[in-house]
Amino acid sequence: MDLQNPVSLILLSLFLLAHNAHSAKRSVYIVHMDKSLMPKAFSDHHFWYSSILKSANSVVQTSLDGGDKTQPKLIYTYDNAFHGFSAKMSKDELQALRNSPGFISAYADDIVTTDTTHSYKFLSLNTATGLWPASQYGKDVIIGIIDGGIWPESLCFNDDGMAEVPAKWKGICQEGEQFNSSLCNKKLIGARYFNEGVRAANPGVTITMNSARDIDGHGTHVASTAAGNFVGNVSFFGYAAGTARGVAPRACLAAYKVLWNEGNFRSDMLAGIDQAVADGVDIISISLTNRVTNLYEDPLAIASFGAREHGILVSFSAGNRGSSIATLRGGIPWAVVVASGTVDRWFAGTLTMENGKVITGWNTFPARATVRNLPLVYNETLSVCNSTELLAEAPNDSIIICNITSENTDFSSLMDYLSDSNTVRAAIIISEDTSILGSNSFRFPGTVITPKEAVEVIDYISNSATPRGTISFQETVLGPKPRAAPALASSSSRGPALSYQGILNPDIMAPGVLILAAYNPHVIVSRIVNNIFLSSDYNLISGTSMACPHVSGVAALLKAAHPEWSPAAIQSAMMTTANPLDNTKEPIKDMAFGYRPATPLGIGSGMVDPNRALYPGLIYDASLQDYVNLVCSMNFTREQIEIIIRSSYNCSNPSSDLNYPSFIALFNFEERGMTFTRKFKRTVTNVGDGATTYRAKLEKPDNVTVKIWPVTLAFRKKYEKKSYYLTLSYRGDIDAFPTYGSLTWTEESGKYTVRSPIVVSPGVDNFG
Amino acid sequence: MDLQNPVSLILLSLFLLAHNAHSAKRSVYIVHMDKSLMPKAFSDHHFWYSSILKSANSVVQTSLDGGDKTQPKLIYTYDNAFHGFSAKMSKDELQALRNSPGFISAYADDIVTTDTTHSYKFLSLNTATGLWPASQYGKDVIIGIIDGGIWPESLCFNDDGMAEVPAKWKGICQEGEQFNSSLCNKKLIGARYFNEGVRAANPGVTITMNSARDIDGHGTHVASTAAGNFVGNVSFFGYAAGTARGVAPRACLAAYKVLWNEGNFRSDMLAGIDQAVADGVDIISISLTNRVTNLYEDPLAIASFGAREHGILVSFSAGNRGSSIATLRGGIPWAVVVASGTVDRWFAGTLTMENGKVITGWNTFPARATVRNLPLVYNETLSVCNSTELLAEAPNDSIIICNITSENTDFSSLMDYLSDSNTVRAAIIISEDTSILGSNSFRFPGTVITPKEAVEVIDYISNSATPRGTISFQETVLGPKPRAAPALASSSSRGPALSYQGILNPDIMAPGVLILAAYNPHVIVSRIVNNIFLSSDYNLISGTSMACPHVSGVAALLKAAHPEWSPAAIQSAMMTTANPLDNTKEPIKDMAFGYRPATPLGIGSGMVDPNRALYPGLIYDASLQDYVNLVCSMNFTREQIEIIIRSSYNCSNPSSDLNYPSFIALFNFEERGMTFTRKFKRTVTNVGDGATTYRAKLEKPDNVTVKIWPVTLAFRKKYEKKSYYLTLSYRGDIDAFPTYGSLTWTEESGKYTVRSPIVVSPGVDNFG
Repeated sequence: MDLQNPVSLILLSLFLLAHNAHSAKRSVYIVHMDKSLMPKAFSDHHFWYSSILKSANSVVQTSLDGGDKTQPKLIYTYDNAFHGFSAKMSKDELQALRNSPGFISAYADDIVTTDTTHSYKFLSLNTATGLWPASQYGKDVIIGIIDGGIWPESLCFNDDGMAEVPAKWKGICQEGEQFNSSLCNKKLIGARYFNEGVRAANPGVTITMNSARDIDGHGTHVASTAAGNFVGNVSFFGYAAGTARGVAPRACLAAYKVLWNEGNFRSDMLAGIDQAVADGVDIISISLTNRVTNLYEDPLAIASFGAREHGILVSFSAGNRGSSIATLRGGIPWAVVVASGTVDRWFAGTLTMENGKVITGWNTFPARATVRNLPLVYNETLSVCNSTELLAEAPNDSIIICNITSENTDFSSLMDYLSDSNTVRAAIIISEDTSILGSNSFRFPGTVITPKEAVEVIDYISNSATPRGTISFQETVLGPKPRAAPALASSSSRGPALSYQGILNPDIMAPGVLILAAYNPHVIVSRIVNNIFLSSDYNLISGTSMACPHVSGVAALLKAAHPEWSPAAIQSAMMTTANPLDNTKEPIKDMAFGYRPATPLGIGSGMVDPNRALYPGLIYDASLQDYVNLVCSMNFTREQIEIIIRSSYNCSNPSSDLNYPSFIALFNFEERGMTFTRKFKRTVTNVGDGATTYRAKLEKPDNVTVKIWPVTLAFRKKYEKKSYYLTLSYRGDIDAFPTYGSLTWTEESGKYTVRSPIVVSPGVDNFG
Repeated sequence: MDLQNPVSLILLSLFLLAHNAHSAKRSVYIVHMDKSLMPKAFSDHHFWYSSILKSANSVVQTSLDGGDKTQPKLIYTYDNAFHGFSAKMSKDELQALRNSPGFISAYADDIVTTDTTHSYKFLSLNTATGLWPASQYGKDVIIGIIDGGIWPESLCFNDDGMAEVPAKWKGICQEGEQFNSSLCNKKLIGARYFNEGVRAANPGVTITMNSARDIDGHGTHVASTAAGNFVGNVSFFGYAAGTARGVAPRACLAAYKVLWNEGNFRSDMLAGIDQAVADGVDIISISLTNRVTNLYEDPLAIASFGAREHGILVSFSAGNRGSSIATLRGGIPWAVVVASGTVDRWFAGTLTMENGKVITGWNTFPARATVRNLPLVYNETLSVCNSTELLAEAPNDSIIICNITSENTDFSSLMDYLSDSNTVRAAIIISEDTSILGSNSFRFPGTVITPKEAVEVIDYISNSATPRGTISFQETVLGPKPRAAPALASSSSRGPALSYQGILNPDIMAPGVLILAAYNPHVIVSRIVNNIFLSSDYNLISGTSMACPHVSGVAALLKAAHPEWSPAAIQSAMMTTANPLDNTKEPIKDMAFGYRPATPLGIGSGMVDPNRALYPGLIYDASLQDYVNLVCSMNFTREQIEIIIRSSYNCSNPSSDLNYPSFIALFNFEERGMTFTRKFKRTVTNVGDGATTYRAKLEKPDNVTVKIWPVTLAFRKKYEKKSYYLTLSYRGDIDAFPTYGSLTWTEESGKYTVRSPIVVSPGVDNFG
């Protein structure tokens, strides 16, 4: 330990403070090492780390009066995505270890969470033109899925039509409980599992499924979303019926199981990512988020940096922490951070009244219920539907109206009451809660309609002697009606990112609401009334977890189509071609706020558009040194910086002005009423056909003066680079709300448009 | 009316007796006419019948003192399957009409019933060899379905792969309510509806669906069973999943709707058959039965005779009147009468106990219930499962054992009690009732096991501290385990036929238990707990109604393969090649009697075997005159005979010894202890390859002496006919039970075996 270094001194103090009678109690720490400092005596890093751990123990033993003679335990060594190890050790041992040469940092293991809530979506790629044929559907690209493992028998992972396993593949199909190596094939080319972290945290624990087999469904779902093979005639109990396919149906999959019933630990996740890098994957898809918000403490950020160093694109889910500003924790400038949006799909309970009127309500009741020509019953008392006793008074074989717009009940309680009914056949549920219009938790037949639609129904019932209606189920409606799509999911985490605000996050939006993909067929995924629980080979779930593998799949397709592109180029292509408009040509709306327009802090550059990403015109590329310069510019200590970039890079040119395809300028509340200016330099590479000229087209944020220079970029040839400057001058508004705009470089023929969102916003610290 | 004729006098007396103050009240009568007696003055039969009806009314009007001036109403004229008309008239008018020249007989309209109960099956035809390729899957053959209409949108009736409509087709696609003529295509080539009978019987009635559209599902089911096109990925809520296809997937269908919500009438059915004959169908399939038992009063028997006169094979369902002897009413010697059997398919609720033992129970719960690793609960008190209160005491989320072998409850009540439970997750139902093992009325998750299997389950529960089990659903098991197939359905009606006992009926058995075929998608076909009712595009239903269209389909295939064969030849081919053994090579069992061997009075010649029927070796042919001779031999009056054969045939050679491919010899109880002898002459036609020799192989009925002469039939060439005599000498047993055997003509190479069952039985009048 360098006692000249003030941070080390602080850390030492902290550890001395923590030092107490229980210091011999061991827990898991992840230790970052600078491998370049490995003494020549060690043939490999594994021995080096073992030796360090042993030495640390010796130091502690010497200082103890004959107490604990047990040894710390090395759990993983990491050597690909980053360098270091995890070990179960005491705080004393950790402290001793800090004196070892090459030690960079250490932190306690921590849990990670998956990003699934409940809702729907799908991507439009076609066999005739665009990215699918251009990429041969992702042929020879390998996507590593860091998640809860895989259900290898799912038909989505059959290898019909797959080419041979790419020669670059160095991974294995690890044997384990209910998992033998023959379960891998030319689609699922590898599977591994990592649970040393969870075992170390829970000594003697019995691992429920000690193999790469998914016992939940989340891992299977994201893997099949990214690169599942074609499977006909799938559905979620009749909804979303059709042919399932991943975004990159000919890409290969490698599953790294790092999530366990017994706990999800960073050490295990890191081991998975590290191994994926070693195995030779091209894309890493991680539908998980950390609790930490400092990049130098976030193993995902650190490992992603390492992965990008190996030319691997990493995509993350933004998280499902919802609609408030700055709920996005781990914004990582060298990864793609993905928000979740709806697709143009609606699961209908279509109500047809005997007078011929039709209302397309929302419904996902998991069976083909028959509700035909039954009496429609509305009375105000009954319609509160807030008790079993009340519902018992409803006429037999009737369709009742339940109005849950008031405070009387909620959707979930309503399902309880209805499930106890032995007589009601269906309910028309009046609700203005958009979250119900994404629920797949219908346990009783019915349809959700809006208060506006309800007027017509109640009017008909009131004016008919024998009002009757029919509700049809298992209907899937595609297209912009009844709701425009995509819309930003309420639950999708919003920027600015807590981890680093200098880059606009999330980067992009992808389908993440009610996505149909493969699942563990033994898991309960739906329910009818009270005690009929159902499972399915395919599940319809929602969250940024579902959005992330869509982007991973698109990245895989782009990698196949443009093998020479860097991860930054792939990311740029996806971002600058993303669509900020929905299928009614209006700005994408935000489900969270009564469908007002979404902002780049929710949707990033917009909805990923794979076919446009194939030919982006211009790309904003970035080298590893650019990321190093960015990290060096962060308000970090030398040690914190080196945790991320390691010592082999230099910090001589720190710059926060990363060549990123989006713009965010933050100000402090103190700047209100003052004018401040931010200047960005960007360099674009012409990846179009040859000589051409682009002109800047500006959508100016309110209260912001924008200058672009030059406003024309004339390229003489392909791969030529041109730079430009964007200057934002902002007179801080008294209310200090974020304000939004965009810069679009438009090619003279109109063939290419290269768009970047612009955000001027108060910094995170300025929000409540 | 010929007053010299004693029968006419009797009829007159009967009508005079019935004559009362209400004689002007009109109802529907079906009137048979001898068209050969039509006066030359009439250009066609329609005018003739109208004139007769008008005259009858005049006679009555004259005799009335200025009362009723309304006219009788002609409903249908029939001119194809038989000659005559139906009309709504008073008894006076009917009586007057009897004096008309050409009048043969009249009887009141009556209702008909469909033959569906509840249960499963399927036919094995293949694309490589046998009847399918030989018949081009029934190409250019037209099957007329006399039933409840059709759901034309069913994918089973799409015309992909169909050839052009056969040139012989003279039918139409009749417009009607929710049915326009564009709904017909190259598969469903025609559709008509007939409801004048039901309208006449219910004046002013509103017909629920006044078109050929099926509002039930029965007609759609039988049509798709006979000749549905290929449709992939169909199932009954996950059971019997696979590709649906009719027996003759390239045959054409013509639907004649004669069944109505408002009533099923013989006059309408007759009109349908008559029209089918006129339209040019090749096969008529009638899954309906009459209440009448006298052939000369049975319009189906009469119309079938007319159809056979036109070279059309008619197949009927035997009826679902169950397992007692002589429950078959309408045995018609000139039609094929079809019994119903199981197929080698089992719908499993597979119970897997945590000790690894697996029991394949029976289950058709219509959803993919998840019942995994849940506590198994057995206690004797709870296991009677005969009240909601008792079941409320079962532990939450448990699998309980319900023993319904005792008198405590039945399956249906048990489903009620379970459906009221909010806690129990599934039931293991112990039952020895084979009818449950064919039920598709599971409303609650569970599995039915036998008392023998239950021993193991209870033993495990009793000896385990934490017994747990898993039940899987939507499983379809094929093959002879756990039950041999086919087995005769308990509900299938048994011979001897009440209508005519001189011919062994039923003729043949076909799959009729839990048959999956298309259905009206709006009709409720299943249920979950109490009030969740379900519909499906495909239904799994049972009955001789389902068996009949299988035989119709096979007949269509044979007609396509052998266009020159008469209906009798087709019938003979099916019967002599039918299989009396099940898939364990044991005699087919009867589900009704604890799986004891079935008899020819239940299964006729055995299970239809389409591929063997293609090359039967020998056929028992019969000309129309042979049937005439048979009818002439019946103990009927001249008038009764002419109702069937009409006056153009002569009765100079009455013979009860029809050249039929089965033998039945009846005796009276009075003959007990005496020896009686029956002698049969049969003539077989060699339809094999050329010169060959057949030898008789006898399976002798108990207590019967059988003589066959000659025992060898040496054919010199194809189409040569040879006759033989079979003599049965029986010394009536004191208990007078039926006794059974068979005669099989075996070709010297072993290539052909031509089998006929032999029954020696007390006559129907001798049974209680």
